[in-house]
Amino acid sequence: MQLRLKKGEDRRLRAGHAWIFSNEIDTVSTPLSAFTPDATARIVSDRDAFLGYGYVNPHALISARLLSRDEKQLPDAAFLATRIERAQRLRARLYATPHYRLAFGESDELPGLIIDRYGDVVVGQVATAGMEARKASIEAAVRDIVAPRSFVWKNDTGARDLEQLPKALEVAFGALPESVELIENGIAFAAPLGQGQKTGWFYDQAANRARFRDLLPANARVLDVCSYAGAWAVTALKAGAREAVCVDASASALQAAELNAQRHGLALETLKGDAFDVLEALAAAGRRFDAIVLDPPAFAKRRKDLPKAQAAYRKLNQLALRLLDDEGLLVSCSCSWHLAEGDLLVAIQSAARHVSRFVQVIAVGGQAPDHPLHPAIPETRYLKTFFCRVLTG
Amino acid sequence: MQLRLKKGEDRRLRAGHAWIFSNEIDTVSTPLSAFTPDATARIVSDRDAFLGYGYVNPHALISARLLSRDEKQLPDAAFLATRIERAQRLRARLYATPHYRLAFGESDELPGLIIDRYGDVVVGQVATAGMEARKASIEAAVRDIVAPRSFVWKNDTGARDLEQLPKALEVAFGALPESVELIENGIAFAAPLGQGQKTGWFYDQAANRARFRDLLPANARVLDVCSYAGAWAVTALKAGAREAVCVDASASALQAAELNAQRHGLALETLKGDAFDVLEALAAAGRRFDAIVLDPPAFAKRRKDLPKAQAAYRKLNQLALRLLDDEGLLVSCSCSWHLAEGDLLVAIQSAARHVSRFVQVIAVGGQAPDHPLHPAIPETRYLKTFFCRVLTG
Repeated sequence: MQLRLKKGEDRRLRAGHAWIFSNEIDTVSTPLSAFTPDATARIVSDRDAFLGYGYVNPHALISARLLSRDEKQLPDAAFLATRIERAQRLRARLYATPHYRLAFGESDELPGLIIDRYGDVVVGQVATAGMEARKASIEAAVRDIVAPRSFVWKNDTGARDLEQLPKALEVAFGALPESVELIENGIAFAAPLGQGQKTGWFYDQAANRARFRDLLPANARVLDVCSYAGAWAVTALKAGAREAVCVDASASALQAAELNAQRHGLALETLKGDAFDVLEALAAAGRRFDAIVLDPPAFAKRRKDLPKAQAAYRKLNQLALRLLDDEGLLVSCSCSWHLAEGDLLVAIQSAARHVSRFVQVIAVGGQAPDHPLHPAIPETRYLKTFFCRVLTG
Repeated sequence: MQLRLKKGEDRRLRAGHAWIFSNEIDTVSTPLSAFTPDATARIVSDRDAFLGYGYVNPHALISARLLSRDEKQLPDAAFLATRIERAQRLRARLYATPHYRLAFGESDELPGLIIDRYGDVVVGQVATAGMEARKASIEAAVRDIVAPRSFVWKNDTGARDLEQLPKALEVAFGALPESVELIENGIAFAAPLGQGQKTGWFYDQAANRARFRDLLPANARVLDVCSYAGAWAVTALKAGAREAVCVDASASALQAAELNAQRHGLALETLKGDAFDVLEALAAAGRRFDAIVLDPPAFAKRRKDLPKAQAAYRKLNQLALRLLDDEGLLVSCSCSWHLAEGDLLVAIQSAARHVSRFVQVIAVGGQAPDHPLHPAIPETRYLKTFFCRVLTG
């Protein structure tokens, strides 16, 4: 079945993007109501030039997403398996152990599909009706390619609302584990699955945590803000940090952090509460640190949140800067797609000036290589991490 | 002596920048002609609020640069030594061997001064009259702090023209070595000094070359374009690449590359010529590679070069993409400050679409930590390196 675009609306697609918005479609000649998400749409320009195959959700603002650009290759189940295998090959080559994001949606030309691998447990996330309709093919492909013990769908992302999909935790096959186990940069961790954030782990920060280990001052006192399961803190302790404090609003996250430290015979301090309040309290108590990680949830979930978000990043960084000793390390992250890298840097710099600190940015990090960027889809690049040496003089 | 700014012109300084342009100065009350570069200027706002101490060059567009913001601390020789020592402490902590940029100008609050360290040989570069006037203090400080065998001024940067400074190679003390030796990521190299580029080595790419090693496909055929002394190629060969080809317009650079391979018992192929021509010829000859590094000189030296530069980056990347086998690695760099990171990505993506390749950006690199970014001075951030997995399917 054909989906025809309006005149000129093929440009973004030809430049490499994979999304088609509802207003770009010639709905007179090819009405959206004719499509169901399981169908393969043949996407053409206003002059009927072939652009690619994709799937359609007539009820979503992003009405169609491109699956392939090769006219001879229909995006059937075998094709999906080839794509998953191609994604897997990249990770297998780069990671020492099978613990990574195996497929990262649009960036692996698998729009709407995320697959995370925790050894023989695989956790998938589907964000679109088109991928939801292809779940059985995906399950079969994953079974063939990585033969996991369990495959769980953790379909709880907010993106599903936009596609009118229900949220649910489903077992595709195997048992539903309570937690997942993984090795990151040579360190073993466990993370909650059902109650956990994302699919259980933030693999996107793995390369930044390796860099954190390399840039960490010797014998450091470390503060891990919005710590979740303690990945930053435990990485620091394993690298010789003399103390680590985890701050999180979630008691179960802090419990996971403690357990992750314990499994290496290490101990960390946990402080439950709102990050801003806890940082204020630490300052009032005269606590000081040599390294502070700020890895908060996205403050700007929508574009209109930006001004408030910018102020929140600034405030959080300012509170952290006050707690750092001279020549300390500040690791300041944002996973808000809407907040540009430059905006985060402005927040850090303006915080620094306000408390008379001089900041040298000694490294800038992004997503680990299992979260590749699609060069034509800016939305695939969301994580920003600044490593700053903070000087008081 | 006081240098007074016009109303409102203190804003950028207060936000953390270190430069004062000639048109921002109240030259009626504080004429520039009263200053010599060796003098310390007390820089104040239009309301005489203290902003900092700096030095002045009445003949340059950037008429003054800030040295310090502490009113109690005059930027004398002892102060400069403290700054150099502080810069050195960062590098000493992060680098296994004494081979790094010891001081990176504005980013180390040492405006106009670069110091590179090659073990017991130190090579400095001065870009401003203010620093030129302080050379003796710098030499004394470096002698105290790192006690090198030789200290050479390689004062040949184009920036000196703007300050009306002559270009020269001068020996501060010790002998003038013909070449420098260094270890980068555990690999020993030599580089020409007098005839070499920069101070001899491109330390700014060290972290990117470590990443290159980690991301390199197994058993790769590697093409190193604008290779200079072969750092990328030798890094790849040491990591198990099966062949490496260096392309450069300079015969002496290619000779240095060959010698760097030989010192590790390795061999590489060299092709002398214009990068564009050589890549065309390799394509015509049917050569194929698994990893290609494009590390060209800045195509955009001035803002007005941008459109031409953008086209040149696109063309170079397109030529390289054609030579890569499926799932090959493209490492595409730009050191043009005027070309934004996003512009380089557009050049890569548009090249990729033109030759029907799909590019996944698996890492984005910048300057190594011995070239920190000053968060308020965008000019300190110039190097962009995209690591791309290139797919033909």
